[in-house]
Amino acid sequence: MIKINFTSHNKEVYCNKGDNLLEVARNLNIFIDAPCNGNVSCGKCKVKLLKGNVDTEKTLHIKDEEWEQGYILACNTKVIEDIEIEVPSKLSSSMHGMKIEGSDKKRDKEIFDRAKNIIETHNLDFKTNIVKTYIELDEPTLDDNISDADRLERHVRNNLGYDEIDFKLDILKKMPVVFRQNNFKVTITYVKKKNKITILNIESGNTEDRLYGVAIDIGTTSVVVCLVDLYTKEVIDKASSGNAQIKYGADVIHRIIYSSKKNGLDHLNKAVIEETINPLLESIYIKNKIDKDNVVSLVVAGNTTMSSLFLGVYVDYLRQEPFIPPFLKSPKLMADDIGLNVNKSAYLYLAPSVASYVGGDITAGVLSAGIWASDENILFIDLGTNGEIVFGNKDFMMSCACSAGPAFEGGGISCGMRASNGAVEKVSIDKETLKPHLTTIGDCDPIGICGSGIIDLICQMLITGIVDRRGKLQRDLDNKRIRFNEHEIGEYVLAFKEEYNLENDITVTEVDIDNFIKAKGAIYSGASVLVESLGMDFSIVDKVYIAGGIGNNLNIENSILIGLLPDIEREKFEYIGNSSLVGSYLALISKDAKQKLKQIGNEMTYVELSVYPTYMDEFISACFLPHTNIEQFPTVKSLLGE
Amino acid sequence: MIKINFTSHNKEVYCNKGDNLLEVARNLNIFIDAPCNGNVSCGKCKVKLLKGNVDTEKTLHIKDEEWEQGYILACNTKVIEDIEIEVPSKLSSSMHGMKIEGSDKKRDKEIFDRAKNIIETHNLDFKTNIVKTYIELDEPTLDDNISDADRLERHVRNNLGYDEIDFKLDILKKMPVVFRQNNFKVTITYVKKKNKITILNIESGNTEDRLYGVAIDIGTTSVVVCLVDLYTKEVIDKASSGNAQIKYGADVIHRIIYSSKKNGLDHLNKAVIEETINPLLESIYIKNKIDKDNVVSLVVAGNTTMSSLFLGVYVDYLRQEPFIPPFLKSPKLMADDIGLNVNKSAYLYLAPSVASYVGGDITAGVLSAGIWASDENILFIDLGTNGEIVFGNKDFMMSCACSAGPAFEGGGISCGMRASNGAVEKVSIDKETLKPHLTTIGDCDPIGICGSGIIDLICQMLITGIVDRRGKLQRDLDNKRIRFNEHEIGEYVLAFKEEYNLENDITVTEVDIDNFIKAKGAIYSGASVLVESLGMDFSIVDKVYIAGGIGNNLNIENSILIGLLPDIEREKFEYIGNSSLVGSYLALISKDAKQKLKQIGNEMTYVELSVYPTYMDEFISACFLPHTNIEQFPTVKSLLGE
Repeated sequence: MIKINFTSHNKEVYCNKGDNLLEVARNLNIFIDAPCNGNVSCGKCKVKLLKGNVDTEKTLHIKDEEWEQGYILACNTKVIEDIEIEVPSKLSSSMHGMKIEGSDKKRDKEIFDRAKNIIETHNLDFKTNIVKTYIELDEPTLDDNISDADRLERHVRNNLGYDEIDFKLDILKKMPVVFRQNNFKVTITYVKKKNKITILNIESGNTEDRLYGVAIDIGTTSVVVCLVDLYTKEVIDKASSGNAQIKYGADVIHRIIYSSKKNGLDHLNKAVIEETINPLLESIYIKNKIDKDNVVSLVVAGNTTMSSLFLGVYVDYLRQEPFIPPFLKSPKLMADDIGLNVNKSAYLYLAPSVASYVGGDITAGVLSAGIWASDENILFIDLGTNGEIVFGNKDFMMSCACSAGPAFEGGGISCGMRASNGAVEKVSIDKETLKPHLTTIGDCDPIGICGSGIIDLICQMLITGIVDRRGKLQRDLDNKRIRFNEHEIGEYVLAFKEEYNLENDITVTEVDIDNFIKAKGAIYSGASVLVESLGMDFSIVDKVYIAGGIGNNLNIENSILIGLLPDIEREKFEYIGNSSLVGSYLALISKDAKQKLKQIGNEMTYVELSVYPTYMDEFISACFLPHTNIEQFPTVKSLLGE
Repeated sequence: MIKINFTSHNKEVYCNKGDNLLEVARNLNIFIDAPCNGNVSCGKCKVKLLKGNVDTEKTLHIKDEEWEQGYILACNTKVIEDIEIEVPSKLSSSMHGMKIEGSDKKRDKEIFDRAKNIIETHNLDFKTNIVKTYIELDEPTLDDNISDADRLERHVRNNLGYDEIDFKLDILKKMPVVFRQNNFKVTITYVKKKNKITILNIESGNTEDRLYGVAIDIGTTSVVVCLVDLYTKEVIDKASSGNAQIKYGADVIHRIIYSSKKNGLDHLNKAVIEETINPLLESIYIKNKIDKDNVVSLVVAGNTTMSSLFLGVYVDYLRQEPFIPPFLKSPKLMADDIGLNVNKSAYLYLAPSVASYVGGDITAGVLSAGIWASDENILFIDLGTNGEIVFGNKDFMMSCACSAGPAFEGGGISCGMRASNGAVEKVSIDKETLKPHLTTIGDCDPIGICGSGIIDLICQMLITGIVDRRGKLQRDLDNKRIRFNEHEIGEYVLAFKEEYNLENDITVTEVDIDNFIKAKGAIYSGASVLVESLGMDFSIVDKVYIAGGIGNNLNIENSILIGLLPDIEREKFEYIGNSSLVGSYLALISKDAKQKLKQIGNEMTYVELSVYPTYMDEFISACFLPHTNIEQFPTVKSLLGE
């Protein structure tokens, strides 16, 4: 046996000769960010060898200077003798992304208002089919000695007027003790369906005022959980964190590949349920003094892959031609089926997917955006991991998925991070000094950059001439913030480590910019094709809704200038935030909305870009700042004086 | 920490000073029989202290000679220092009772024939609502790329003609891989209900010929599992063992008391599911090469307490006035709800109980006995642990429960054992030598005595004058088989240890006889009251069915002579064996029979003996051999020449 000492975590572990260092760390629950899931392609899993020798190789990701200091890629390292390893505490290799973030009351209110607006505008009901009622059962005597279950049934029949009563074993298990805690005075929670009720909870005494539901948005990168009062329909609290699946890969493809490996599916399922959602729920319960048994309904939205992994369903055939998902519509589920930290009998509904790469997050988003009832032509762009686009109105809806990767959520960018505290969300660059002015979320010192920040940064680099329209740094600028490594790859320093007491400089490299240009090119070309496939162009679009985790301070102007969004009237654009969460919330509080959501899933058309004749050409043309055809971007043309 | 070395099991364990020795052994899974569940009342948990000192006391159960040898009661012993303990390997403290016993093809055939007879006599259907069908799905292409779940649904709609399809998560989890193992050729198992089907299983290829169900009888003492081919309806195999709950007490009252202690309910639930039923199923699967996923339906019968513990439902209120059971009717259940070792989606039905002490074993027994359709007056006596009685015909059925304890299954008798190999099942005693002639189950050397053997033995002791009508041994008989201990308690030696190379003599003591007389008195008086309550006497009875685990060789004549059964025409009696198992089997193979079973549960009347005015007098009168009023037993009167 070989001993590894992870000095940074004060943990020792024994493993076998030849074991992979990244795997060993994972088994020990030491988080090492590995977006490519150990394929030696992203270079993020850099750790420092303090003592001993390993079987490894220097890769392009490791600078000479780093190599000399002992930096190695964990995924590319076999353990051969006792060693000491330091996992750098910087962003990329910390659990920072898993920090639970609380709620912002103002934003919670926005969710409620947006949903309420949809409900009112479209005359939807504002109610669920879940009821909670306080009842007083007859106390048993020697002459009235029917069983506890029969006593409840008799009461329901005689006093509530339902013919049939149904419950799961967990309810039966509660019955004897709950009945006797308060002399057979109890509160029952149930779902009614015609003349039958299904009991979801029984509690001692009168607890009629406590009835909750949960809306969950499972993003590939981030997960948001939203606790809702099912009486007032108000958002009580919200909490979010990174999706703990990130350690198995940053995007859905890497996750799917991992899921097909031994125990992979189980690991991914546990990562999202036990390591992400359940802790988020627990944090809300503690803060708000909520009994989890009072959470009796859930609506969950995620892309097709996230939905499958959430249920622990094998999803590898999604990745192989002909790209078949295991399911699109939500199966009938109860929370206990997958071990969620809520009432065991709670109803669980998954927003329906449309296709392998247009999932429940999009149908929920479309529900909240109101496209299904709109007279205007709406272009809906979800800038999450990957990126999905819907175009339509009340008569038709078309959707497509772009292979944009996780760039808009900070993935695939060396100093990228999701839109949370410490993320640079706005950037302007001084034309003379080329010094950036940074605004961070939470107004703290910067620790990385999120999607909206990257857009600003690249736009400013383009305008100030730091990069050309191919995204390459000018070689002849003499400025300490612009530098090139031994492979002649340029980088711009957003923040020197000395400025903010960081472990490393925050930089954006030409590789990062290239990744980002591909991402924004995928979105723009996807939108173009969708509109063109109807024989139209962007002028037909009445409204553009931008959704997703890109950050609240998305600068529309800058997004247009770099060619992410079409160069049309600015007032047509609106950033609508986490529309998937708002849609889940809508379906949670309104039966009608849930019905609409099902309908959206059934009726939306899917366009497969990869087989669409002109898509590849469109994509290549869009991989430029803003586009090879500058005529499509008159604003940029005049700004750059071309 | 204190070390205990169980030399007999070659196991060492550490515990705390003051820990109870019986508890420590249980935690280590060392079985020490404790019918009274550690109340220092039965004296069965006798172990030998080989080394060290303990905090214990000599009780009446320990003979002087044993005390000198180091024998102590585990339940009455606190550990105070390192010790060595030997758990005697004799019957009372071995795992003998948990040995899995296989099937006897002849008896299996009897089950089938008895059930078939009921089905034919009463024109019941001979079918279930479970169907298995081989289907060939269209293979997916880029043009036909609907999800796996939708593909199945489409096929069912178009080809099988059902409107709705439903399945649990475990089926969805199987789908992607099973579909592709054999090019989308699969076999589905489903339950149909009107125009809707619920999928219970999907398998690759054509497996239409494999469809199984399981009937289970959960006795307080023994458990029998019966695997059934749902096509042919034949019994494929049967296996039985003791109920592993026995370590927590021999009768339902001790179990209920234990269930209300910390973790007690959980321990009892695990004992019956994980330690009893699942191993029995596993033994059958291995022997018959059965895939557990093909077991899709179960019918289970047990008394009210066994039914509750089987589901893990709190049952302590059954023991406290007004004696309320948690449930009587079977809740809707799937095998996975309680972790049974069968298909997760398998349907699980519990035979309904009638009252706190008349359970599903009795309704199932009554189903198989055909009382519900009989013109004749039938007296049904279940001689299991406790003992329940039903009297009735097609127009009415009345039931009662007797506090007979476990004596008929060998419990509460010092050398008692259940009716399995090595149990003495027949006894005759030579009038001159007083030497017994023994017949054992399996024709092996005797290791204990079962219910039918005890009846024979006591009857023979009465006839030969070894005991008087009070059950006391004659003091003046000079015979080596009759002896008295220091407390003047007499015993009769059935087998000397030297005769069969036993660790101890097999004896029956006056205490045993007294216990048995109380048990038989409870049954006889219960039956009397039931018949009398209708203003009748035993002459009105047309048939007496004896059911239960008392042993196949019950001697009716002897049972009458000792006053267990009424002294009426011998041809009216019939031993029908494990009627609870036959009833479960019937409900498993016939929809109509299951319906009848529900009806029996709803319609049977329950008579509470403890509040019945004349019961106590009747009981006391019956605690005699055969009865204080010998006029009720003319046969005995003439035999004893009184």
